[in-house]
Amino acid sequence: MVRYAQRMDNLNSSDIGDLLKLIARPDIISFAGGLPAPELFPVEELKAAGMEVMDEMGRVACQYSSSEGLMALREKIAKRMGDKNNIKTDAEHILITSGSQQGLDFSARVFVDKGDVILVESPSYLGAVNAFKACEPTFIEVPTDDGGMIMEELEKILAATDNVKMIYVIPDFQNPTGRTWSLERRQKFMDIVNKHEIPVIEDNPYGELRFENDDMPALKSMDTKGLVVFLGTLSKVMVPGFRIGWVCAEDEILAKYSRIKEGADLQSATITQLQANKYMDMYSLDDHVSKIREIYKHRRDVMLKAMETYFPKEAKFTYPDGGLFTWVELPDYINTREMAAQCLERKVAYVPGGSFFPNGGKENCFRLNYSGSSDEKIIEGVKALGEVIKANLK
Amino acid sequence: MVRYAQRMDNLNSSDIGDLLKLIARPDIISFAGGLPAPELFPVEELKAAGMEVMDEMGRVACQYSSSEGLMALREKIAKRMGDKNNIKTDAEHILITSGSQQGLDFSARVFVDKGDVILVESPSYLGAVNAFKACEPTFIEVPTDDGGMIMEELEKILAATDNVKMIYVIPDFQNPTGRTWSLERRQKFMDIVNKHEIPVIEDNPYGELRFENDDMPALKSMDTKGLVVFLGTLSKVMVPGFRIGWVCAEDEILAKYSRIKEGADLQSATITQLQANKYMDMYSLDDHVSKIREIYKHRRDVMLKAMETYFPKEAKFTYPDGGLFTWVELPDYINTREMAAQCLERKVAYVPGGSFFPNGGKENCFRLNYSGSSDEKIIEGVKALGEVIKANLK
Repeated sequence: MVRYAQRMDNLNSSDIGDLLKLIARPDIISFAGGLPAPELFPVEELKAAGMEVMDEMGRVACQYSSSEGLMALREKIAKRMGDKNNIKTDAEHILITSGSQQGLDFSARVFVDKGDVILVESPSYLGAVNAFKACEPTFIEVPTDDGGMIMEELEKILAATDNVKMIYVIPDFQNPTGRTWSLERRQKFMDIVNKHEIPVIEDNPYGELRFENDDMPALKSMDTKGLVVFLGTLSKVMVPGFRIGWVCAEDEILAKYSRIKEGADLQSATITQLQANKYMDMYSLDDHVSKIREIYKHRRDVMLKAMETYFPKEAKFTYPDGGLFTWVELPDYINTREMAAQCLERKVAYVPGGSFFPNGGKENCFRLNYSGSSDEKIIEGVKALGEVIKANLK
Repeated sequence: MVRYAQRMDNLNSSDIGDLLKLIARPDIISFAGGLPAPELFPVEELKAAGMEVMDEMGRVACQYSSSEGLMALREKIAKRMGDKNNIKTDAEHILITSGSQQGLDFSARVFVDKGDVILVESPSYLGAVNAFKACEPTFIEVPTDDGGMIMEELEKILAATDNVKMIYVIPDFQNPTGRTWSLERRQKFMDIVNKHEIPVIEDNPYGELRFENDDMPALKSMDTKGLVVFLGTLSKVMVPGFRIGWVCAEDEILAKYSRIKEGADLQSATITQLQANKYMDMYSLDDHVSKIREIYKHRRDVMLKAMETYFPKEAKFTYPDGGLFTWVELPDYINTREMAAQCLERKVAYVPGGSFFPNGGKENCFRLNYSGSSDEKIIEGVKALGEVIKANLK
């Protein structure tokens, strides 16, 4: 009889896989994914970059390359982290990963043994939670509010818990809530982390997609003890289909990630790294991001306005300053997993909120994505959602 | 203090990472890697395929896609496995991975808990051993000879060992020895495996690179109980820089691999899958493989002849019917790790054999690759190696 590893018992459900399948149905208005708008992809520019790479160094592009990733790309990323996130780093402290999802998977593998504790925001990104589950951790959810993780709660948990091996956070335009941590919280968080010397995984896929107000400093930019591992990605600012993300960490920690990378897949694709690098040589990524930002801001505005118009007052939702998501909270007695089936009959999809609580229980919320749909679809979909919500009110 | 997971204690050394660095030095004649010959890469054809993909479906190529991989590519792979390996399968039983290295990593994660036993050929591929180590297994090495794994030894080990969770084998042009299992061994192996119902990881990166004699049936083609997981790759027959490999397995097992894939990196790059698929639509991969095969056969001949000429008779080596490697065994008193430093002074590199024995101990062997060097370099390098070996004889 075939016997599987115990970790597989943790991985039976597949919220995110089912999601990706829903997205593929063209008749559904999907607010479920975190998909960038495909009409904004710089297809012609990437094609030109790809041709240039094949002409200039086709054999290099086709060959194996280093586990750490292409040096020129790592240099650009390091510089960009300085410009955008005020993080002083260099190429030697960057490891290219296959999307930041791979950085999440590696994080648990580097730090977490079976039964160890991972602290996460409550709610937190379900793709991260799923990746971490393969290392059989215990999750402790730290309560959050509009300003981010609540520091008093974090301190209480750390005082009472021995084997916390890492803290996973998304301080900017959080997935799923769209909330951003205040500066005060960030400073307080780093004080606490420094005191306890616990590694922090700072996941920042959306940071450049700020629509208004001032940039907040990355936790990594305030990291004086080398405890913060910063995960970045080109998926939301360039294209996801190239699968290019990165880990930025200090020497000893990064060396551990590199060991895992070698075993996991040797290296990320040579050609996509060269192509992304060439694109950044030939064109302005900043200009491209400005364009994305403007359109996503518009779509956020359309969605929020539609929600104000069509949702009943019992539905509360967040007003994100950037990123891809807003988060809706309904009265306690409404179960959004059950309601999802009614919404699918109306051809609208969201992700039920319960999926974002690793220890389960909170079933009256859902996540909406606004970046991947046109104005018309957003209005039509939100209107249908509003009607279903109203029909579920007591 | 930062505390790492226990699995990291297993992953301190990095033979393969050091290797990739050696390869990068242009002044070294490297027989160390398993690099395809870059001058054979179909650069122009892949460029044309890439342009076509961007023109026809650029937005799809840039977007997220399914965890299982591109359906059209999986269909081609399934058909190819029928044609080349006599394996009856279909696209539903194929999962695209980022190189077959990722299939190795997933295999341990699907089947192996800490302390579980993995059986491997002695010697076995060091990249597999390194990947497996992240799951903290115990390795038992099964003795081999010129016909492959020795079945009596396998039976003895299985009779005496409870917790064998998987058997990892490379029956065709094995890495590192270049040896191929006989038909009789394959049949006997499947009898034993069926009796014990133990999953088998059949790694077949080189199968299509046969220079002479008849193809041997894949273990997967004789798998009546759904125990064999077949790992394939385009790295050696097309290009490694795209990182496209696959897992072929039956329903329940493949579903476990898919769960791991979602957490590990969501999906392999969309664009490289589309580009490889388009290349196979536009051109004949078979014709390309014929060309590679011819040149590698020639290089094998050049290397073997050079070894016959320049190596002392105390050096024994294998005569591979295909693949990329030959395996050299020296008298017991010569330590090839120490000798490697002397060879580097002569600007020649190989992989010391000890790296291929997970439990260590056999230090008088080394692996040579012939596919990645020109005739002149092969002769020059083997001549230098021969001189160093002679200087080490007692």
